[in-house]
Amino acid sequence: MQALSTETKTELIRVANVLADAARTAVLPHFRSDGLTADNKLDEGFDPVTEGDRAAEKAMRALLAEMRPEDAIVGEEFGAKEGASGLTWVLDPIDGTRGFLSGTPTWGVLIAVGPETGPQLGVIDQPYIKERFLGGFGEAWVDGPMGRRELRTRVTSELSDAILFTTFPEVGTSAEGEAFHAVSRQTKLTRYGMDCYAYGLVAAGQVDLVIEAGLQSYDVQAPIAVIEAAGGIVTDWQGDPVHQGGRVLAAANAKLHAQALEILSQV
Amino acid sequence: MQALSTETKTELIRVANVLADAARTAVLPHFRSDGLTADNKLDEGFDPVTEGDRAAEKAMRALLAEMRPEDAIVGEEFGAKEGASGLTWVLDPIDGTRGFLSGTPTWGVLIAVGPETGPQLGVIDQPYIKERFLGGFGEAWVDGPMGRRELRTRVTSELSDAILFTTFPEVGTSAEGEAFHAVSRQTKLTRYGMDCYAYGLVAAGQVDLVIEAGLQSYDVQAPIAVIEAAGGIVTDWQGDPVHQGGRVLAAANAKLHAQALEILSQV
Repeated sequence: MQALSTETKTELIRVANVLADAARTAVLPHFRSDGLTADNKLDEGFDPVTEGDRAAEKAMRALLAEMRPEDAIVGEEFGAKEGASGLTWVLDPIDGTRGFLSGTPTWGVLIAVGPETGPQLGVIDQPYIKERFLGGFGEAWVDGPMGRRELRTRVTSELSDAILFTTFPEVGTSAEGEAFHAVSRQTKLTRYGMDCYAYGLVAAGQVDLVIEAGLQSYDVQAPIAVIEAAGGIVTDWQGDPVHQGGRVLAAANAKLHAQALEILSQV
Repeated sequence: MQALSTETKTELIRVANVLADAARTAVLPHFRSDGLTADNKLDEGFDPVTEGDRAAEKAMRALLAEMRPEDAIVGEEFGAKEGASGLTWVLDPIDGTRGFLSGTPTWGVLIAVGPETGPQLGVIDQPYIKERFLGGFGEAWVDGPMGRRELRTRVTSELSDAILFTTFPEVGTSAEGEAFHAVSRQTKLTRYGMDCYAYGLVAAGQVDLVIEAGLQSYDVQAPIAVIEAAGGIVTDWQGDPVHQGGRVLAAANAKLHAQALEILSQV
């Protein structure tokens, strides 16, 4: 694929914001609504899918069909659509469905776009708080209750000073969980339950690390773009690209990334 | 103490809202600010106190000195002030300081008022989201991004259908932690990391249970009043009043309360 023109980058940022606005509008009426349906998408485990999930992805796909008809799409709910432009939009209309069903403002709409080599622009949007983290093509900002602020990751240089997040204590397989807790024991503080919002907090310089396992491409692509635009690093547990999903290590900077990787890479 | 007049109840609700407004204004400039100071209040453990904490409690105490000079005050930061009215205000300017320092919108300002027998009015306020849960004297509502809604707890009747929250997986002592996890294993879903916001979610009918240990009076009095006004039950792990602090079981209804209590009371 050719390098993107400045005009195209500006257009992609505009479209990403339009998609996020539409997803907010589509999903919010379902949040904390009575009688929320929760189909079980997987036979094992607890992975509810709500009407909000489907409504938000449909809204985003309809807009892309109009605004970016040549681009490919990968969405959590409605699968893949091929494209001819070399760019793929990766959509997760509600990342953190358990948080959504619990009423916590920790889930988010995830939107990423880029070539096959990985996402170049990402949005993490929290519709209830009306807070949006966007990173890519020279932009890196959060816009929310306190206005728009630049995103910049922290300079924490030692694990012993670091704040670590993950969604729940049972991280991945038994071996993966052991590796996570080996890192956790060296940090100042470990917190749980923030879903994709935790990646926004890394980008915003509030926390230092997020470690997760078993992620899909649509779970991780937007966080990668947002955190990298803010100065952080996101890889798998071997230090390799993770935009196809898997085990994720998101770090505020190279020093922390190296320290966590040394432990995680032993799995 | 005499029964409170309707006029007094209305006045107390008004004052509670004024305090919560003032605390919001005082604390929010410190949230996600650079160079946030975090003194260690306790020698062991991690209990940071921020300038926001102190600023918010000072603001509330100054207002009470003007508006309710005869009432007693108990505050997390500045201790107890005696009163002559028989009513005590119980203030926790930032409940969830670790969440506050991590940038998560899960901490809250807790305000309660009542006689010695326990809180009759409570406020859980989340300044960043601009969301307020208030319960007592015939009122029970949440006012936030989706407007004002009535608070009403869930009717879930079996632990196997229940959503349980607590702040972190290491609940209290080893025996307390075992009891917590014995309940957790029977629930549909256990989530962590919501600080006092979890009690608001019980009142709002989003989740079913919150179980914690080692709480202070100022941590629990506002949640008690808000949840009870919404139809729920808050006791200690023996089923006794818990407004002086300790081990807390907050349940959406009597059936769930009884089922969780049967397990927890064995500690």
